[in-house]
Amino acid sequence: MATLVKLFQPVSEKSNGSGNKVTVVGCGQVGMAAVFSMLTQNVTNDVALVDMMGDKLKGEMMDLQHGSAFMRNAKVNASQDYSITAGSKICIVTAGVRQREGESRLDLVQRNTDVLKCIIPQLVKYSPDAIFLIASNPVDILTYVTWKLSGLPRHRVIGSGTNLDSARFRYLLSEKLGIAATSCHGYIIGEHGDSSVPVWSGVNIAGVRLSDLNPKIGTEEDPEDWQQIHQSVVKSAYEVIKLKGYTSWAIGLSLSQLARTILTNANSVHAVSTYMKGEHGVEEEVFLSLPAVLGHNGVVDVIRQPLTDKEAMQLRQSAALMAQVQAGIQF
Amino acid sequence: MATLVKLFQPVSEKSNGSGNKVTVVGCGQVGMAAVFSMLTQNVTNDVALVDMMGDKLKGEMMDLQHGSAFMRNAKVNASQDYSITAGSKICIVTAGVRQREGESRLDLVQRNTDVLKCIIPQLVKYSPDAIFLIASNPVDILTYVTWKLSGLPRHRVIGSGTNLDSARFRYLLSEKLGIAATSCHGYIIGEHGDSSVPVWSGVNIAGVRLSDLNPKIGTEEDPEDWQQIHQSVVKSAYEVIKLKGYTSWAIGLSLSQLARTILTNANSVHAVSTYMKGEHGVEEEVFLSLPAVLGHNGVVDVIRQPLTDKEAMQLRQSAALMAQVQAGIQF
Amino acid sequence: MATLVKLFQPVSEKSNGSGNKVTVVGCGQVGMAAVFSMLTQNVTNDVALVDMMGDKLKGEMMDLQHGSAFMRNAKVNASQDYSITAGSKICIVTAGVRQREGESRLDLVQRNTDVLKCIIPQLVKYSPDAIFLIASNPVDILTYVTWKLSGLPRHRVIGSGTNLDSARFRYLLSEKLGIAATSCHGYIIGEHGDSSVPVWSGVNIAGVRLSDLNPKIGTEEDPEDWQQIHQSVVKSAYEVIKLKGYTSWAIGLSLSQLARTILTNANSVHAVSTYMKGEHGVEEEVFLSLPAVLGHNGVVDVIRQPLTDKEAMQLRQSAALMAQVQAGIQF
Amino acid sequence: MATLVKLFQPVSEKSNGSGNKVTVVGCGQVGMAAVFSMLTQNVTNDVALVDMMGDKLKGEMMDLQHGSAFMRNAKVNASQDYSITAGSKICIVTAGVRQREGESRLDLVQRNTDVLKCIIPQLVKYSPDAIFLIASNPVDILTYVTWKLSGLPRHRVIGSGTNLDSARFRYLLSEKLGIAATSCHGYIIGEHGDSSVPVWSGVNIAGVRLSDLNPKIGTEEDPEDWQQIHQSVVKSAYEVIKLKGYTSWAIGLSLSQLARTILTNANSVHAVSTYMKGEHGVEEEVFLSLPAVLGHNGVVDVIRQPLTDKEAMQLRQSAALMAQVQAGIQF
Repeated sequence: MATLVKLFQPVSEKSNGSGNKVTVVGCGQVGMAAVFSMLTQNVTNDVALVDMMGDKLKGEMMDLQHGSAFMRNAKVNASQDYSITAGSKICIVTAGVRQREGESRLDLVQRNTDVLKCIIPQLVKYSPDAIFLIASNPVDILTYVTWKLSGLPRHRVIGSGTNLDSARFRYLLSEKLGIAATSCHGYIIGEHGDSSVPVWSGVNIAGVRLSDLNPKIGTEEDPEDWQQIHQSVVKSAYEVIKLKGYTSWAIGLSLSQLARTILTNANSVHAVSTYMKGEHGVEEEVFLSLPAVLGHNGVVDVIRQPLTDKEAMQLRQSAALMAQVQAGIQF
Repeated sequence: MATLVKLFQPVSEKSNGSGNKVTVVGCGQVGMAAVFSMLTQNVTNDVALVDMMGDKLKGEMMDLQHGSAFMRNAKVNASQDYSITAGSKICIVTAGVRQREGESRLDLVQRNTDVLKCIIPQLVKYSPDAIFLIASNPVDILTYVTWKLSGLPRHRVIGSGTNLDSARFRYLLSEKLGIAATSCHGYIIGEHGDSSVPVWSGVNIAGVRLSDLNPKIGTEEDPEDWQQIHQSVVKSAYEVIKLKGYTSWAIGLSLSQLARTILTNANSVHAVSTYMKGEHGVEEEVFLSLPAVLGHNGVVDVIRQPLTDKEAMQLRQSAALMAQVQAGIQF
Repeated sequence: MATLVKLFQPVSEKSNGSGNKVTVVGCGQVGMAAVFSMLTQNVTNDVALVDMMGDKLKGEMMDLQHGSAFMRNAKVNASQDYSITAGSKICIVTAGVRQREGESRLDLVQRNTDVLKCIIPQLVKYSPDAIFLIASNPVDILTYVTWKLSGLPRHRVIGSGTNLDSARFRYLLSEKLGIAATSCHGYIIGEHGDSSVPVWSGVNIAGVRLSDLNPKIGTEEDPEDWQQIHQSVVKSAYEVIKLKGYTSWAIGLSLSQLARTILTNANSVHAVSTYMKGEHGVEEEVFLSLPAVLGHNGVVDVIRQPLTDKEAMQLRQSAALMAQVQAGIQF
Repeated sequence: MATLVKLFQPVSEKSNGSGNKVTVVGCGQVGMAAVFSMLTQNVTNDVALVDMMGDKLKGEMMDLQHGSAFMRNAKVNASQDYSITAGSKICIVTAGVRQREGESRLDLVQRNTDVLKCIIPQLVKYSPDAIFLIASNPVDILTYVTWKLSGLPRHRVIGSGTNLDSARFRYLLSEKLGIAATSCHGYIIGEHGDSSVPVWSGVNIAGVRLSDLNPKIGTEEDPEDWQQIHQSVVKSAYEVIKLKGYTSWAIGLSLSQLARTILTNANSVHAVSTYMKGEHGVEEEVFLSLPAVLGHNGVVDVIRQPLTDKEAMQLRQSAALMAQVQAGIQF
């Protein structure tokens, strides 16, 4: 085109790369909140979006592209074809079907396993060196399924797990204490959801353990009833879904934080779903959340928290339950 | 509570203020994208959300609060009661009803005027010094309505106008030119939507006017057919709505950018809907978009672009149309 | 000027305000690193610089202004006249003379008190509602001096104190542990400098206390010699000064973090120099560092860390020493 | 160490990479301002610093490391040995000697060429795929020298050139116009320094050319004397050096902006020193600044600005002067 010829003196080939490419599979509320968080928080400026629903996918892509001048020239591609994901550093999977009324947990897991069978091999094919970050629910089992389907070493398959539960816990602590959530330290581990385990022994403000101030904290005997905070965390997802129909912002931000940690090789600690066999007496090949050091290679270390007998037992019970469901999956 | 007494030695009263409070009315897709953009882009960390739908509102608030540890301790309040908006620096209005099938434009405007009658006086009451930023559609007329209802000086009532159209224009230019959207300069002015006016004479890359390279650019005689870019901009909103059901990300980012400009008193230039009487031969009291210098006080200056006769005529036609609709509004 | 008249249609008065103005007194290495950190980290975009050395001051101002297009339109003013500081939200004081060879500590304190006598009343005059943040050394005593000279309530006068020592401590822990500094939690309290106190009982990773894994940690009996990390912290400032002549980046970043906390009313916890009488058995009116909740009003709460007898005794010894020096100051 | 064994369950090897590594050679004021800008603006979190002065180098490294908890876990390495630079995406060169009193320009160039002879081959050896960004003065000639010494294709060797002059120009325009520097568009091209060329024909606000409002703008006949702004730009560096002894912040920010553009493959337009032969009638193999599209591969396109005869002649004169000096260099 004449105008372009007059305007530009070409010097070299344009590169398609960016070094920080992230693929997100699933352009539902969770996937889009993750993409938007990553773009606006400058975690990456290079995103590939994949979904089976072509119209929705194209609409989301266009809407983001229209905002690119507001987001440091974010580059957003979307397609039903996985070839656009090639060379990603991280693949985030948010796709999956929802539980039908009356459907058993195993039936749901099987249906989502069937979905992942279409997704994971394609992602591995185009980004063989990527870290896989799973957000689809039930996240712990689907992280295991992804690990199995991908054939990747276990440190490269991570479930978003209780990183979000821990953030909700810290927010509720911050409300009770009247200080910033970032200054409230505490972890929820184990299964993402109902049977999650709050590690009260580690909850601290500026290194001051609340359990030193209130030895019964987190127990049923606590007159101050701090355990109600954990109960609120467990109820949170249900309540938000009931109120607005789905959860999106907090899980999107959680995924964005994990992606930043991996891309910048930060080696910071987050509660994520990871291979548990051998930890806290768990003997099954399951994925549950523990605080882990995350970097460029995925999980570098798992932090060995001293747990009470009760906490460890809860983890083992969750693990047994996971293993039982996993045994029924047809790969 | 004993634990808190042991942990904290109180020194002074906690402040509720932040100095950068922003109210958003309407927690639909546009309002929430605006809120999320402002929080993740660190435009503000203090947001008040108001909507009539209590459940949705509470769900959105909780979802954002759960992510506060990921967003520098963002403070999000939500209520159906406007008292939570007190002391805002900016009030963003995204509320409004959608066009019914077969409904006339005037009928839609009247219904949204009735909505604004409930909203604007409440906002003015609690934040008498705020800048008002209107995104509800049809945005130009509703900005006028807000101005009328609020009794505020005209520089403090701004419509999001063609700031978004201009961003879409720049994105599409960037695609055609193969360079960053932030390096493609050009403005769309006038009415937000179908009758918007692209100012081709000002479109430039590094100060090089494309119209100097291609004098017929933007006209129907242009063999390179650049005017098709403006047509795509006009179709954009319709296409995104058809594909995903609504627009959200780009308009959210546009509002976030305008809020940042105002809060930081940047005095930067954006195409926004502003009082037009006296500009480019417009004689009616209408609001249409022109490039304007925005700062702490809202609109500081309007930039006087030299327009072609055709461009100025298009503006005046839009103005006449606006005025005609406005004449039928019952306040 | 004709060109401006043609370009601009004035609509309203330009505002001078920003709502986040920060004054920095002293344009030496510390002051400039603080200013540059705040501008590049988007803590504020409105800085007033004051110094007695007019040339240096003007040079620094111009150099920053030349970069304003790279920093979201940062506004930097500088003058020897304090009127430019009017309306600041925070006043950061980095000015002060250095210790002469053979000079006693008290003589140095007196000379810097005389410097502060010129500065503090001017700052209070023009920004009566500001929070005062002192970085001049010896910082604990000069924070006390500022408190006395200003007549302000104690929660509004804060010394940068051991926020920096704690950051150095966390960095050195991160090196030893191989994980991110932001995931290493621990506080150094007391006097900024030689007699600072590391609170080993609170040092933790993901809530796991290192002292639970190694009960002798921080003591002289520890076979792993972790106390050497504290010794390195103490030596750090001396070593950096010996190597590059001064310290700048880390203290600048520390001040920037504290300024962000205050401006955003974050209520997050930082070790800063604050009024100590009544804490840990200290009976003198001195300022030493403790973890404190900081917000818009300055110090909101002090965190009551359970200290060992030895740690509390060290604090009281520092306090006694401070009080002794303070007793000799002529106001 | 027992404590670490108890704390960590190792899962995988820690990575050393980051994907966004930047090397800076020279830890003087310019180099350090560039490093600090890149770290605080989140352009990279992985920096390698090289200098011959071991003490200064170590002091700067330590000072930055002490601030790592304030900067998203920035990783800073420093050494006199170039092996630490391995795998950098960008190599920024700020090293060089200053002009001695009475020294000819050629003598200075020769001395700095000798410095670059030690640096460039080492950088190329360890980062053969890096983009080279030169800030040492005289920058245009030393960019040519780097190109020669490196053997790299011309698109991978870039001089910081008039990116800074253009920023100063935009700041001074912003002061005169009373609007944000980011809304003032204009380029200074040619030689960085005294003989730089302001392209007045492209100076515009919102696409409105000032030369359309004031046809004599930039000429000696202009009654409004806008050319004085360019004169101020030329004097800026001298004035800042006279006042504070050196320039640092603005050039550091300029380098940070260019590094971000390259790392994120932004394809945005910046005035940088690039190979000029064939542009605007220049026939010599010299490097001068023109607006250029920069991405992952360095210079992608040069923008062909229509210049006046006088402007083009000034460029050719600069080119002839460069070529003359270059002819005397001993490689």
